[in-house]
Amino acid sequence: MDFLESGYGKIEWAERHMKVMEKIREIFSKEKPLEGYKIGMALHVEAKTAVLVKTLVAGGAEVAITGCNPLSSQDDVSAALRDMGIECYAKRGMSDEEYYSALNKVLDSKPDVIIDDGADLIFLLHGERYDLAERVLGASEETTTGVIRIRAMEREGILSFPVIDVNDALTKYLFDNRYGTGQSTWDGVLRATNMLIAGKKVVVAGYGWCGRGIAMRAKGLGAKVIITEVDEIRALEAVMDGFEVMKMEDAAKVGDIFITATGNRDVIVEDHFKLMKDGAILANSGHFNVEINIPSLERLSKSKREVRNWVTEYDLGDKRLYLLAEGRLVNLVSGDGHPIEVMDMSFSDQALAVRYIVENHEKLENKVYRLPEELDRMVARLKLKSMGVDIDELSESQKKYLSDWRQGT
Amino acid sequence: MDFLESGYGKIEWAERHMKVMEKIREIFSKEKPLEGYKIGMALHVEAKTAVLVKTLVAGGAEVAITGCNPLSSQDDVSAALRDMGIECYAKRGMSDEEYYSALNKVLDSKPDVIIDDGADLIFLLHGERYDLAERVLGASEETTTGVIRIRAMEREGILSFPVIDVNDALTKYLFDNRYGTGQSTWDGVLRATNMLIAGKKVVVAGYGWCGRGIAMRAKGLGAKVIITEVDEIRALEAVMDGFEVMKMEDAAKVGDIFITATGNRDVIVEDHFKLMKDGAILANSGHFNVEINIPSLERLSKSKREVRNWVTEYDLGDKRLYLLAEGRLVNLVSGDGHPIEVMDMSFSDQALAVRYIVENHEKLENKVYRLPEELDRMVARLKLKSMGVDIDELSESQKKYLSDWRQGT
Amino acid sequence: MDFLESGYGKIEWAERHMKVMEKIREIFSKEKPLEGYKIGMALHVEAKTAVLVKTLVAGGAEVAITGCNPLSSQDDVSAALRDMGIECYAKRGMSDEEYYSALNKVLDSKPDVIIDDGADLIFLLHGERYDLAERVLGASEETTTGVIRIRAMEREGILSFPVIDVNDALTKYLFDNRYGTGQSTWDGVLRATNMLIAGKKVVVAGYGWCGRGIAMRAKGLGAKVIITEVDEIRALEAVMDGFEVMKMEDAAKVGDIFITATGNRDVIVEDHFKLMKDGAILANSGHFNVEINIPSLERLSKSKREVRNWVTEYDLGDKRLYLLAEGRLVNLVSGDGHPIEVMDMSFSDQALAVRYIVENHEKLENKVYRLPEELDRMVARLKLKSMGVDIDELSESQKKYLSDWRQGT
Amino acid sequence: MDFLESGYGKIEWAERHMKVMEKIREIFSKEKPLEGYKIGMALHVEAKTAVLVKTLVAGGAEVAITGCNPLSSQDDVSAALRDMGIECYAKRGMSDEEYYSALNKVLDSKPDVIIDDGADLIFLLHGERYDLAERVLGASEETTTGVIRIRAMEREGILSFPVIDVNDALTKYLFDNRYGTGQSTWDGVLRATNMLIAGKKVVVAGYGWCGRGIAMRAKGLGAKVIITEVDEIRALEAVMDGFEVMKMEDAAKVGDIFITATGNRDVIVEDHFKLMKDGAILANSGHFNVEINIPSLERLSKSKREVRNWVTEYDLGDKRLYLLAEGRLVNLVSGDGHPIEVMDMSFSDQALAVRYIVENHEKLENKVYRLPEELDRMVARLKLKSMGVDIDELSESQKKYLSDWRQGT
Repeated sequence: MDFLESGYGKIEWAERHMKVMEKIREIFSKEKPLEGYKIGMALHVEAKTAVLVKTLVAGGAEVAITGCNPLSSQDDVSAALRDMGIECYAKRGMSDEEYYSALNKVLDSKPDVIIDDGADLIFLLHGERYDLAERVLGASEETTTGVIRIRAMEREGILSFPVIDVNDALTKYLFDNRYGTGQSTWDGVLRATNMLIAGKKVVVAGYGWCGRGIAMRAKGLGAKVIITEVDEIRALEAVMDGFEVMKMEDAAKVGDIFITATGNRDVIVEDHFKLMKDGAILANSGHFNVEINIPSLERLSKSKREVRNWVTEYDLGDKRLYLLAEGRLVNLVSGDGHPIEVMDMSFSDQALAVRYIVENHEKLENKVYRLPEELDRMVARLKLKSMGVDIDELSESQKKYLSDWRQGT
Repeated sequence: MDFLESGYGKIEWAERHMKVMEKIREIFSKEKPLEGYKIGMALHVEAKTAVLVKTLVAGGAEVAITGCNPLSSQDDVSAALRDMGIECYAKRGMSDEEYYSALNKVLDSKPDVIIDDGADLIFLLHGERYDLAERVLGASEETTTGVIRIRAMEREGILSFPVIDVNDALTKYLFDNRYGTGQSTWDGVLRATNMLIAGKKVVVAGYGWCGRGIAMRAKGLGAKVIITEVDEIRALEAVMDGFEVMKMEDAAKVGDIFITATGNRDVIVEDHFKLMKDGAILANSGHFNVEINIPSLERLSKSKREVRNWVTEYDLGDKRLYLLAEGRLVNLVSGDGHPIEVMDMSFSDQALAVRYIVENHEKLENKVYRLPEELDRMVARLKLKSMGVDIDELSESQKKYLSDWRQGT
Repeated sequence: MDFLESGYGKIEWAERHMKVMEKIREIFSKEKPLEGYKIGMALHVEAKTAVLVKTLVAGGAEVAITGCNPLSSQDDVSAALRDMGIECYAKRGMSDEEYYSALNKVLDSKPDVIIDDGADLIFLLHGERYDLAERVLGASEETTTGVIRIRAMEREGILSFPVIDVNDALTKYLFDNRYGTGQSTWDGVLRATNMLIAGKKVVVAGYGWCGRGIAMRAKGLGAKVIITEVDEIRALEAVMDGFEVMKMEDAAKVGDIFITATGNRDVIVEDHFKLMKDGAILANSGHFNVEINIPSLERLSKSKREVRNWVTEYDLGDKRLYLLAEGRLVNLVSGDGHPIEVMDMSFSDQALAVRYIVENHEKLENKVYRLPEELDRMVARLKLKSMGVDIDELSESQKKYLSDWRQGT
Repeated sequence: MDFLESGYGKIEWAERHMKVMEKIREIFSKEKPLEGYKIGMALHVEAKTAVLVKTLVAGGAEVAITGCNPLSSQDDVSAALRDMGIECYAKRGMSDEEYYSALNKVLDSKPDVIIDDGADLIFLLHGERYDLAERVLGASEETTTGVIRIRAMEREGILSFPVIDVNDALTKYLFDNRYGTGQSTWDGVLRATNMLIAGKKVVVAGYGWCGRGIAMRAKGLGAKVIITEVDEIRALEAVMDGFEVMKMEDAAKVGDIFITATGNRDVIVEDHFKLMKDGAILANSGHFNVEINIPSLERLSKSKREVRNWVTEYDLGDKRLYLLAEGRLVNLVSGDGHPIEVMDMSFSDQALAVRYIVENHEKLENKVYRLPEELDRMVARLKLKSMGVDIDELSESQKKYLSDWRQGT
């Protein structure tokens, strides 16, 4: 397939599996709720994202988009978007300058609403592009890492517009972070390494929704899973789920494969590299490439080289360690990112969040909001329907029972 | 073993496996925080509960206790409690009159603090024993069903004292409801039936924490699991967890074993019984025996008889259905209830809740409160320690990173 | 329920779930293939066994039966059998003398065909009761341990009659040993201990069909499973199945619960007891009580006592170890043995084996035979049918394809 | 990376994870057991295969190799092999003529020993290249499909040289077919589709070692798995493993994804296509592309087109079906084939089989042989050692116990 055809093909394939989005696009096409609005987006620009863009455009919006991570966009999809007339600045393999320059170009388009993933656009709007912040009606943010940053802004009282925390929609984090990251992380690792997971000791750092998805799928592939955590409740859940829980300094000695998914920095650092076995594999599924401390790995190493696509060998003299995808999101760099069907929900939440901002921005304060629960539940119901799943409803007497404290033993 | 010896033996065995409680008892023994207080309790009176009672007594309290369900108490344990000098009114197999009479005897002791499970004591204190309510400093409630009732009271504005909702402690519902109910429900079913679970179609009504525990363990035993739900988010989670989700009217036709865990009434009713296969097994793990509509099952049946301990055969003419444990909590009636180690956490939460009430009642309003998070997390940390599990701690730079929104790509 | 009623009730309940046996009993009742034959049996005398006895009797046989293990028979079932007029010598809790005396009484009845479990009857017939061996037309043996003994006899050339190795029927060992032992072992452990399995380190000695069933179910209950093995292929399978594999001397240090299922002796011995943690639990699912070396445990201990039914505490001074079910088959001693539905297949194999011996003994040599494959497959087909499962059949062109080597790429 | 560099890189990466092969290569390098022998090979020519070739060459052999399937070879690896001086005729995307022409070129090199995968070389040697058969000392065959063909030859009495059935080595089929095919099939499906597996109804045709691997991993990814089988024992195992078992005509109506792994033809045919849902995905993991009847799919379709790499859309008018990898081995066509570590064992078996043929051909008849068990077990022990796993050994008294029938209850 040629390049443009490949991009269009991927988008069409994604469209066929995004049934909730299809329904929303139908409504948007009819009601045109975004007519006259400009949406500025920074997301991983690949096929599912293109389907979101097409839906926003169907709703009447103009869109300017770039990537939200230097290595996660797919150029054939970007080409197809441009061919459709979308303002798209994404390119795979951007330098930091190129990356920020592209974000700035998106902002240059003077967006009314922002869709962000990791909060880099929102960050710029609260710094060097602050002049543009006041015209922004609101933003919606996609991921845990971005939400952590925006909540910090909120606490400091400097947030300049309302933000919908799409990550905390039930139809987002319960599915995208768990089943999406869980599957796609291993998809990325398998493509990069061709290794057998069965029988391996896999260390997952973080037992949040992403981490437990990764752990669950590692177990499903036959691995012995070890969890590291800083939260006592999560650690205890991991133990009860049948996983080994230990400190990273202990896990470092025994792990064959390490995956970070904490949203924090310096989860694997110099002291840990020193303890690792020859041949250990390192990968990250968190948003930023700071979970594994790569500078210290570089410092420890005598040389490095690429041995397979997205596998970098670091030679530490007494042993060799292997970093996948340059420590960036392994599922997006060495794979196609999250499975289509989970992004169907996450991006439906995004589309509904944009509409909600446009229609309600006057009532909203400069705070972080959850996606309204009725929209969240609507996505779930549409999803179930698209899968042909029918569920029960509470009868009147059952509703009454739940609100009546007089009925006992 | 003789009767009393058996009761003492069970209590001692439970004590050995309740390591968090052991630690709390040490503290209570030294500090005597409950000196001069009377605790009125309605809990399933079996070995783990006895360990809680002993801990409260070690803390200086006087205790009066009865069962919270007609079939869930164990007489050898009650005998041992009485032998220790505890005021205990529990008996296995009480009639409704006996049951309420025992509750009233506990209240007659003029308790300062209530520990309830299902809210029957609290209910009485808001009705016919209202005279005693004003002297109650506070109560703590153990289970989902009870919390539903108490929150209804709170909404109606009639709550007469503060209630700690121990069920919503993380160290309670994430463990007790999930791993506890999950394991003990199957323990109860296996004892009652001696049936093979592998290859069976198991229908679990409700995908809350109890339901997902039951489903998870059914899968772990080789069953094909079907979930029924009224909540679209939970239903979707069940689908993604690999379970079949359908309406009860469809599940009724194919299920071999049905387990209810919804906290609601009339989950399985006449129309469902009519659709079921010959030989279908019915059991309940919810607090009250109203989830399976037994009166309508009785009406449909030409005769009934007990075929094995806790297995009642209902002959409907064209088929026979089997109800376990008279539709009451199958894990407590035909088993020993939750595994000791989870009750270690739940009852440690209870002990700490009682202390919290005694020490803070003046500051508390007549509302429902969660157990303070620091107590909740203390229980988790003690539990991890007792299991020999060490976890990581956030470094200063990591804490800073989590609160700093300026660091991006 | 009274004693006799309880025995009859259990038998009737088992009958309802033994659908293959029901079909075979129909055939036997019509054709009376065992008319005039005496069957001498040593099996765990509980409900499922009683259903086999009733089937043999329906086929025209006379039966004399006793237990095949001192602690595994259920007295209410024995009472019911006697009430039906069956010659039954089983009693729970026999001394060694009583046990062998009962075996001898069965042989005194001059059986034509033997059904054995562990080969104790067959052993007697090749020793002190050798006089009776020549009138035996053949025997069938139920379990791995027994088969090991009989194959040793075969190798020594001393076998006095043909033996059908029912254990090696596909419909026996693939199901009974794996799904049966797997589930019932944990049923037994849960009843004895009321412990939480989730989060525990469970050591399973032996990764044969029984061992992998036990390991699979431990994992399904949330345990971290460690396997010990002497066979390199099985060890490697265990690793790839996601289990930790190590030597018993290493496992001894970390295990919370130990289950032996090897068919060998001295799997856990003095050196291992010394390494174990305080509170470790020991249980056996192998046929004989020699897998855990109990005499050496007794020697190491300052005292022992029963702390709960089937839980013996050994006080070693610096720690306490707990032996379940006196080291005998934990699933039979502290539970009801294998689930009914797997015994439906195993005992159907037994019934067909007895008929096969009666009808073919003249053609058979004094060797060990597998159950003829067509009988084995018939049991599987009847089982599938009873569960309502339909499967595909090979078309003629598919059969041809499988036998034609000329068709390639 | 450039093309040749990519090929060398993949080979080096594979070498690092083939620890058993590394050990065998050490021995071969020293002892040169293959000096003077020519090996003719038809295998999927990708990195792991190249490591086998290098090992044989290290042992002194000359090698001529081609692919064993038109779509499964990787051109960068072939280029690297040629650059090392190996006679390699493999090319990805061969026509049938090209494919057979390449096989003939391998035979033109007059091999002494054959390594075959699917038996195409062996087939030619028993047909049009029969003249060369007499100089062949022996062959070894890799896969189930090939073994079926060769056993058919053996039954017809026409086999012209001994064949080692490497597929039936324990260290091959228990690992390669199960854990290898299991993981790599899903790797291939994920790369081709980017679909979410959780919540999907996955139909696996065949519950042999490959099929159960595929089913196990589908379950591990959150799918609801349906099995079709023609063998009653395997069908019953699938039921007990928690899977739904049904006829293909019933599965066709409900499946989202179909994977064939039977080694037979016409497993999914016209009648099934007609029953399928819009959007159903079809893939094959069996050796030949005859399991899904593609000609009949073509006939039913109004048009077809490629929508993504290795995804062909068939438009049937009322619905669209999607065939992956043109119905050829999906793991090899749209992935990198089996994981390295399982091929480490399978190809170590191959290397040892070649040596065994060379050293023992005079003693061998023209029959099919299993790999000698001591070689098989040696591979297992080396593998365990390379993973750092130590296992127990039988003591003398344990060995004695296993051979002594006199020890009973």
